[in-house]
Amino acid sequence: MHPRIDPAGARSVVRMRVRFAETDLMGIVHHGSYALYLEQARVEWLRRRGVHYAEWAGRGNHLAVAELHVRFRAPARFDDELDVETTLAHVGAASMRFEYRVTRHPDGALLAEGHTLLACVDDKGALRRMSPEWLAVLARPEAS
Amino acid sequence: MHPRIDPAGARSVVRMRVRFAETDLMGIVHHGSYALYLEQARVEWLRRRGVHYAEWAGRGNHLAVAELHVRFRAPARFDDELDVETTLAHVGAASMRFEYRVTRHPDGALLAEGHTLLACVDDKGALRRMSPEWLAVLARPEAS
Amino acid sequence: MHPRIDPAGARSVVRMRVRFAETDLMGIVHHGSYALYLEQARVEWLRRRGVHYAEWAGRGNHLAVAELHVRFRAPARFDDELDVETTLAHVGAASMRFEYRVTRHPDGALLAEGHTLLACVDDKGALRRMSPEWLAVLARPEAS
Amino acid sequence: MHPRIDPAGARSVVRMRVRFAETDLMGIVHHGSYALYLEQARVEWLRRRGVHYAEWAGRGNHLAVAELHVRFRAPARFDDELDVETTLAHVGAASMRFEYRVTRHPDGALLAEGHTLLACVDDKGALRRMSPEWLAVLARPEAS
Repeated sequence: MHPRIDPAGARSVVRMRVRFAETDLMGIVHHGSYALYLEQARVEWLRRRGVHYAEWAGRGNHLAVAELHVRFRAPARFDDELDVETTLAHVGAASMRFEYRVTRHPDGALLAEGHTLLACVDDKGALRRMSPEWLAVLARPEAS
Repeated sequence: MHPRIDPAGARSVVRMRVRFAETDLMGIVHHGSYALYLEQARVEWLRRRGVHYAEWAGRGNHLAVAELHVRFRAPARFDDELDVETTLAHVGAASMRFEYRVTRHPDGALLAEGHTLLACVDDKGALRRMSPEWLAVLARPEAS
Repeated sequence: MHPRIDPAGARSVVRMRVRFAETDLMGIVHHGSYALYLEQARVEWLRRRGVHYAEWAGRGNHLAVAELHVRFRAPARFDDELDVETTLAHVGAASMRFEYRVTRHPDGALLAEGHTLLACVDDKGALRRMSPEWLAVLARPEAS
Repeated sequence: MHPRIDPAGARSVVRMRVRFAETDLMGIVHHGSYALYLEQARVEWLRRRGVHYAEWAGRGNHLAVAELHVRFRAPARFDDELDVETTLAHVGAASMRFEYRVTRHPDGALLAEGHTLLACVDDKGALRRMSPEWLAVLARPEAS
């Protein structure tokens, strides 16, 4: 059985700042940079629940991105501070789905929305059922 | 009225090679690199129909990415040659949708599928109806 | 006359964390990522002296990178926290030189050293003498 | 004894095209992108002498970048075709030095010059003397 997700506990907001190199000649953030923003937010989401992803990956617990979806609502610009709201939306036997809302700090303008589907895989990229350890992490609220 | 899309003419295959820097510590291509692959394929798709996107953008005809969707099927690796099959799937009043299939050359293994929705915008990012010039380009088959 | 540089005031340390996407298949940070780290540190160096580079660039004051030099001493890894010590080392009529030491937090291991030469240019990329406003900024210590 | 380098045989020119994502808000190629261009040129330099670097790396022969130096002479722009002239300039016991000149095709304008120092390391990053196999490769001219 999969853990029920407590919506309040499943959400974290991670703030980051747009780098110069992440812009393009249109003067705005290149759309490809959002893959990096969502990933950074996901890594922090896990850290706030006690998981150092570098360490987990070192022990053969990888989260491979199986699907990436982003809807771009308004451009981000160099030096903007972004709040990436990251919510665990679904947990499967060997996968999990995170949803994201990227807003600009401090005015809260919505810049992008999206989700990623992550597959739990071992060092060789083979799917593996999520361990009870993983499931426990995913059910944890953010440490305060 | 929007041009009817001739499926045969609407397709181009662009070959590219994975760079070392596009891999990550899992030893495979980082998922974010696919945004660059699809973009490069799209630029070549246009070039083969007579549009030098750099020049068009310089005249205020931009194609802003409004949506990015990628489904990752199998990992690509450093130095792989990729064939990005790019198909114009829909043309709207101020938008177009491209679909992609990324396969590995020469064995044809499917690595990723996806689509992007592009909005026609001016220098300020405001939506603008596609010009007859754009519509003519989009209806053109690849130059042989 | 160029401002004399007070070595103590000319130094700032900016902390950042390595992203997953910045690694490569050797399992370490790709050497190209350091260009981004040095740039981010430089932007923060300016911010701590009251310059929001985005705004300055918007007014036609650009700092173009004329030279990049990095010596890699030891590999950085995913999720490492890096301290980029950034020091203004020389100010010319239309250029400035920053020196960098990248160490790992908290053990202080030296990972890389380098410098960048920056040219003051206008919107068209033409060299322009540094304004008194710029010179004043460069002589300022970090705001405490 | 190190092989003497035949200057004519030690040079290859690799052509590539600037991607949209490699530009920044100044409308030109971001300086950090050159690390990728030089690396791609180096990989092709080796390929033209019979070395598939992916395979060599898989057998534990890595070339770690120990030093990167680039002097930027003129900006490259989106969609420019670049010729990266890559020359093996020095071979040491466990290192080699490549020099680069990046010019724009077809007008030949000089955009950047630089060099990289590469260290031969094993899977763990430890220095190892270059094998006779490596030395033979480095002495080979480009396959015609």
